[in-house]
Amino acid sequence: MPVFPLSRAVLLALASLPFSALAAPHSPAPTEQVAGVYHHRIGQLQVTALFDGVVALGRQELTGIDPATVTRALEGRFVPESTKGLQTAVNAFLIRDGGRLTLVDAGTADCFGPGLGQVLGNLRAAGVDPSDVDDVLLTHAHPDHLCGILDAQGKVAYPNATVWLSQADADYWLDPASDATAPQGVRFAFALARKAAAPYQASKHLRTFVPGQPLPGHAVALDTHGHTPGHVSYRFDSEGESLLVWGDVLHYHAVQFAYPQASFEADSDRQAAVDSRRAMLQQAADGKWWVAGAHLPFPGLGHVRSERGAYAWVPAEFSPL
Amino acid sequence: MPVFPLSRAVLLALASLPFSALAAPHSPAPTEQVAGVYHHRIGQLQVTALFDGVVALGRQELTGIDPATVTRALEGRFVPESTKGLQTAVNAFLIRDGGRLTLVDAGTADCFGPGLGQVLGNLRAAGVDPSDVDDVLLTHAHPDHLCGILDAQGKVAYPNATVWLSQADADYWLDPASDATAPQGVRFAFALARKAAAPYQASKHLRTFVPGQPLPGHAVALDTHGHTPGHVSYRFDSEGESLLVWGDVLHYHAVQFAYPQASFEADSDRQAAVDSRRAMLQQAADGKWWVAGAHLPFPGLGHVRSERGAYAWVPAEFSPL
Repeated sequence: MPVFPLSRAVLLALASLPFSALAAPHSPAPTEQVAGVYHHRIGQLQVTALFDGVVALGRQELTGIDPATVTRALEGRFVPESTKGLQTAVNAFLIRDGGRLTLVDAGTADCFGPGLGQVLGNLRAAGVDPSDVDDVLLTHAHPDHLCGILDAQGKVAYPNATVWLSQADADYWLDPASDATAPQGVRFAFALARKAAAPYQASKHLRTFVPGQPLPGHAVALDTHGHTPGHVSYRFDSEGESLLVWGDVLHYHAVQFAYPQASFEADSDRQAAVDSRRAMLQQAADGKWWVAGAHLPFPGLGHVRSERGAYAWVPAEFSPL
Repeated sequence: MPVFPLSRAVLLALASLPFSALAAPHSPAPTEQVAGVYHHRIGQLQVTALFDGVVALGRQELTGIDPATVTRALEGRFVPESTKGLQTAVNAFLIRDGGRLTLVDAGTADCFGPGLGQVLGNLRAAGVDPSDVDDVLLTHAHPDHLCGILDAQGKVAYPNATVWLSQADADYWLDPASDATAPQGVRFAFALARKAAAPYQASKHLRTFVPGQPLPGHAVALDTHGHTPGHVSYRFDSEGESLLVWGDVLHYHAVQFAYPQASFEADSDRQAAVDSRRAMLQQAADGKWWVAGAHLPFPGLGHVRSERGAYAWVPAEFSPL
C-alpha cells in the first residue's frame, strides 16, 4: 500500500478538526470571581456596594458567649471556615445623592495583604472616577476601613475628597500617646491610621466631627462607640426610606444577630459595643431600615428582623435596578 | 476701570475650571444592575450561576396553606413585592467539568417579555462562547427553562449542544394532544415548548431520557415530578461534595422552606410536588449538599438547613474563587 493515501487521510482528518481542538479552548475556565460591585436604589439615593475581600476571624475571638453556644449557632450556617477562622467580608459603600458622591469606609488597600484591597478597583469597575468622590465618611479608624484612602502605592486615592473621622476616633487613633495603653492585638493599627491620614491632614482634607453635627451628603452620624472609642454609624434618609451604614456594629453574622451579647475580642469597650449593637439592631428592625454592614456577606445590604427575642439578618435579593 | 482686566479675569477663571465642570460628569449614575454572573467551585466542578431576570408570583397562587400563614411567613422577610406579586428570580447554571460545559436550564429568551432573557448575554459576559456548550439539561419544559435554547431572534442559541429532556416531560409538553387537557393557566406553554424544541428535534439534537439513565457531564437525574409530569433535578458529585440543581422544587423561598406543604398553583400534580419537595429538602439537608435553585434569589446557590421540623435556606456567601 502506498504511503501517500494514508498521509492524505491523516491530513484530511486534521483539516477537519475544528480550530478549537488545536488552539486554546474558546471559553477558558474563570480564574477570578466577578467584580464585587452591586447597585441598589433607596429613595433618591443610589447605593453601590464595593467588595474589598475577605478576612478570617477565629471563633475563639468571640467573647461573652460560651464556645458550645457558638458551635450551636454556627451549625447549619455553612460559613466558609479555614484554620485561620470564619470567612468575613470587608465592604465599603458609595452613596450617590444627585451629583454628590459619598464613600463610607474605604477598605484595606495594602494593609491586610494580598486578596484584599479591592475597593478602589471595584469603584473603577463601577464606572466611578475616584477623583469624583466628594467625601469619605469613616465609621472608625481601623485599617480595614481607613487604609483605603491611600492607594496600593501609598498615594492619596481620593484627591478631591474630604475625609471625615469622628473627633473621638481621631483623638485616640491619631495620637502616638495611645499606642502604649492599647491592647497588644490592635497596636499595629495606630501607625497604619497615622500613615493613611497624614496626606489628608497635610492638605487640610481631614475633618473631624461629633455625632449630631451636620455632615455632607445629608448623612447623620449615630454614636455607636464600643468597637472603637469614636465608632459611628451613618444614616441616610430619602423619600421615607432609611439606610443605616453601620460599620462594625457586628462582625460574626452567624452568631451576633442571634446572640447580640457576644462581643469581638478587638472591641475597645465590649459592654459599650454590646449596647451599641443592641440599640442599632432594635432601631433597624423597628424602622425597617435598610442596613449596610462592613462585615456582612457581600453586598452586605439587607434588613434586620426581630426573631424570638433576638434578631436575624435578611440579605437583599439581587434585583434589577 | 478699563474693561480688559475684568474680561481677562473671567477668561482665566473659566480656563481654570476643570474640564468636568463643562462636560458631562465623569462618573454617571448607573442605569443598569451589574451582570448576573457568579462563579463557585464545588470539588472539581466550576459552577457559574446565570441570572435571567425576575418574574412576579402572586401570594394567592400559593395553595395548601391558609392566607394568614402566608402573611405571617412573609412578615419581616422583605421580599420585593409589586401589585403583580412577589419578586422571584429566574436562574440557570453552567457546570464546567474539565473541558465539558453543561448548562442546566436556559432561561426565558423572549417568552416572558422585556427585562428577562438575560441568560445568553450573561453567559457571554462570563466569557463563554455559546457554541462551546456541549449539553443543555432541562429540569422541565416550562418556558422559563426551555425557551432560552433559542435566542431572542428565535435561532438555535447553542448550535453544538444536545438538549436533554425527560421522556415524561417530552411526552406531555411536546404532544399537541396535551393542550386540551391542561389547566387553562399553563396552556400557553405548549406552543412555546414545541417551538423551542423544534430545531433541535429536526437536527436530532434533542434527546430524551428516564431518571437513572447515564447522562453527560456525570449528571444524575432524580425524579422530582409534580411541578410537571417529568420534572427532574440533577445531582453532580465531585470530590465528596454534591451539587443538586433542583429546578422548580420550590418557588416561594420565603414560604415553602418553612411550609413545604404549600404548593404553587401551576404545579401539575400538587401532592406529588409536595412529596418531591419534602424529599429533596430532606436529602439536601442530610447530605449538606450544595443546592442551585432556578427560583431562589440570584445566584440561587446555598444550602438547606433543618429548622424546627421544617427547613430554612442558607444562601452562599459571596467569596473569592
